[in-house]
Amino acid sequence: MDLAQIGKIAKEAKTELGSLHTIRKNETLLSAADNLVKDSKKLLEANKKDMENARANHMPDGLCDRLLLTEERIEQMAAGIRKVAALDDPIGEVILEKKCPNGLVIGQKRVPLGVVGMIYEARPNVTADAFALCFKTGNAVILKGGSDALYSNIAIVQSLRSTLESEGIVRGAISLIEDTSRETTTAFMRMNDDIDVLIPRGGAGLIRAVVENATVPVIETGTGNCHIYVDESADFDMALDIIFNAKTQRIGVCNACESLVIHEKIAREFLPLLTRRLGEKNVEIRGDERAAALADEIVPATEEDWGTEYLDYIISVKTVSDVTEAIAHINKYNTGHSEAIITDSYQNAEKFLNEVDAAAVYVNASTRFTDGFEFGFGAEIGISTQKLHVRGPMGLLALTSTKYIIRGNGQIRP
Amino acid sequence: MDLAQIGKIAKEAKTELGSLHTIRKNETLLSAADNLVKDSKKLLEANKKDMENARANHMPDGLCDRLLLTEERIEQMAAGIRKVAALDDPIGEVILEKKCPNGLVIGQKRVPLGVVGMIYEARPNVTADAFALCFKTGNAVILKGGSDALYSNIAIVQSLRSTLESEGIVRGAISLIEDTSRETTTAFMRMNDDIDVLIPRGGAGLIRAVVENATVPVIETGTGNCHIYVDESADFDMALDIIFNAKTQRIGVCNACESLVIHEKIAREFLPLLTRRLGEKNVEIRGDERAAALADEIVPATEEDWGTEYLDYIISVKTVSDVTEAIAHINKYNTGHSEAIITDSYQNAEKFLNEVDAAAVYVNASTRFTDGFEFGFGAEIGISTQKLHVRGPMGLLALTSTKYIIRGNGQIRP
Repeated sequence: MDLAQIGKIAKEAKTELGSLHTIRKNETLLSAADNLVKDSKKLLEANKKDMENARANHMPDGLCDRLLLTEERIEQMAAGIRKVAALDDPIGEVILEKKCPNGLVIGQKRVPLGVVGMIYEARPNVTADAFALCFKTGNAVILKGGSDALYSNIAIVQSLRSTLESEGIVRGAISLIEDTSRETTTAFMRMNDDIDVLIPRGGAGLIRAVVENATVPVIETGTGNCHIYVDESADFDMALDIIFNAKTQRIGVCNACESLVIHEKIAREFLPLLTRRLGEKNVEIRGDERAAALADEIVPATEEDWGTEYLDYIISVKTVSDVTEAIAHINKYNTGHSEAIITDSYQNAEKFLNEVDAAAVYVNASTRFTDGFEFGFGAEIGISTQKLHVRGPMGLLALTSTKYIIRGNGQIRP
Repeated sequence: MDLAQIGKIAKEAKTELGSLHTIRKNETLLSAADNLVKDSKKLLEANKKDMENARANHMPDGLCDRLLLTEERIEQMAAGIRKVAALDDPIGEVILEKKCPNGLVIGQKRVPLGVVGMIYEARPNVTADAFALCFKTGNAVILKGGSDALYSNIAIVQSLRSTLESEGIVRGAISLIEDTSRETTTAFMRMNDDIDVLIPRGGAGLIRAVVENATVPVIETGTGNCHIYVDESADFDMALDIIFNAKTQRIGVCNACESLVIHEKIAREFLPLLTRRLGEKNVEIRGDERAAALADEIVPATEEDWGTEYLDYIISVKTVSDVTEAIAHINKYNTGHSEAIITDSYQNAEKFLNEVDAAAVYVNASTRFTDGFEFGFGAEIGISTQKLHVRGPMGLLALTSTKYIIRGNGQIRP
């Protein structure tokens, strides 16, 4: 199918998908989960082709691991779909209802966004995930995955589609763009007549390309240049534990800590403890002049370091003279994701919470908690770093809009 | 000031504006209103220059009227600012607070968007309006008004700025882009580092240009190709009153009715009544073949008519065989603004409310009610026709985002 046809069937599916009863959606999701597992052999064969191509193209190990499917991972994909089936259905919820003086009754109801376009990298699990979340919220989804995962994605979408067909669900509920050329991808981002929202998920380059080229409204998700500021009054043990957790527990994720900001008055005492602790995982530390002078293990940072999301065993260190300077530094270089202060000062904690401009701001806790599951949403389609529509971890509600429903008996405007 | 400087001072003003106490914001708004009235003479002089240029450039009467300032209109601008001062301040409101099993307390708080960019046409009242709404919600605003209103806008912004200065408010709270060239406007739409949201207000051409060129997130506002569907079971008197109101009460507004959809079984009886009623205001009626055959006054419509927002004494008429066909027609040609059904059928009313895809859907009432004041928001910065962030009339809440505030005592992610 070409792009225009894909857009057309998705748009045509909107009315039917938006009206599906919750029971029917949940039953369909449970069947889809079962059938994915039944289709394991086909999925693994398709994935094997992708893996062979990836290795031939010298894809880095980390990316190969994200691309790989196993029996266990297919079971996890199915479990993820079943979890979405178990969540409350937000569609149709009445948020507001009021009677106007002229007798008009104005209600506001949660409705699907309509058609959601997803652009992502070579991670086949996102294919099943995105379908489940969009279907549960009554949205049609058009998927454009990374070309390296094409065979895997085709197999997953085929499995999901055959479930939809046997459940009598309209075909446009899920589509995959198989032509992964740049021209087609750009055209996809500009289909304002058919697509209501675009959600890019992936690295900084992919997000930037979508923001630059899209005319369809975008929900910008998650690059995270996350900071931890260690205030003068910080408990050192707590600070070390939190930094160690936020930097090293999982280095490739957007809520990992990439940069430290340290109050100058404690730097001399704290930095040697820090280098020892991060040394356990061989973390490279790049500091400003003052920091580098205080510990041999700290190498000099350049201006570029302050803005870099390493996603690696590297961290930068900036020293500051007070919380105000710390906030200014963070607001200059952060990506609006997650920022933390370690302090025992009420005043500095409140100032930091109020003035740091980010989706999630922490006092005395690890930035690693910014996550849809940790926040109790039961699902996550990404982490929004923009301020429109949704900010922070996105669960099912992020995939909904609202609609005003007004009931009258002949009212006209005077 | 050049564009880069304007962006810089607005961004720098964010922290201070976001932390202003409500009392201080309200006092500043009340002073601004008083000072605008005191500066009337300067405003009228500046406006006179704009009006002279406009007339020399043969600006149409309707647009000249929107550009014109009078003592009374300046009083109205001031009254609008005072109304905004009287509204509740949404900033800082805690929407959610919960304690996690590990002791973390997660709160979600309303915060300003940050820097709002407004792009609009030659309507000086929008300048004062936009400032008041953005200032009340702790946002910095950068204004780019139509070049035909430049002198008026400069005078209004000067008056507002001198109030801000005497109240000790940071300078970047309001800026006006005086260079109205296309290059500068395009560069303005792509200042992602400085601007959080762009709101275009104006005709379809302006909105399209912003959607096409902006990389900053946009809230698309209001072209309205609004329909009224007269169902088989409609009360004719009610239908005629509502159509007359929605078409003719004010023709230049986005919630005016532009197109009728009529059930074929009542067309023969209803259309002659309709032509008589709309004839009172000399409304031109363009119909499909079936409609044109039923009344001499109805001229043939072309395909282009179905998608046209006339903003004039013209209306199109399409006949359909049932509510399903009516909904399909509306979902094909509407702009997602306001749509109404006139019916006495419970089933058709519910079907229409559920399946028509628009910001506001009405049963037995005029589309003219889609308005921030009518909906009880006490203010309006525009009417959103997109599904992200806000849909329908936008009050103060539309100018806010949220932020997660997480308080811990050393929590790390296991």
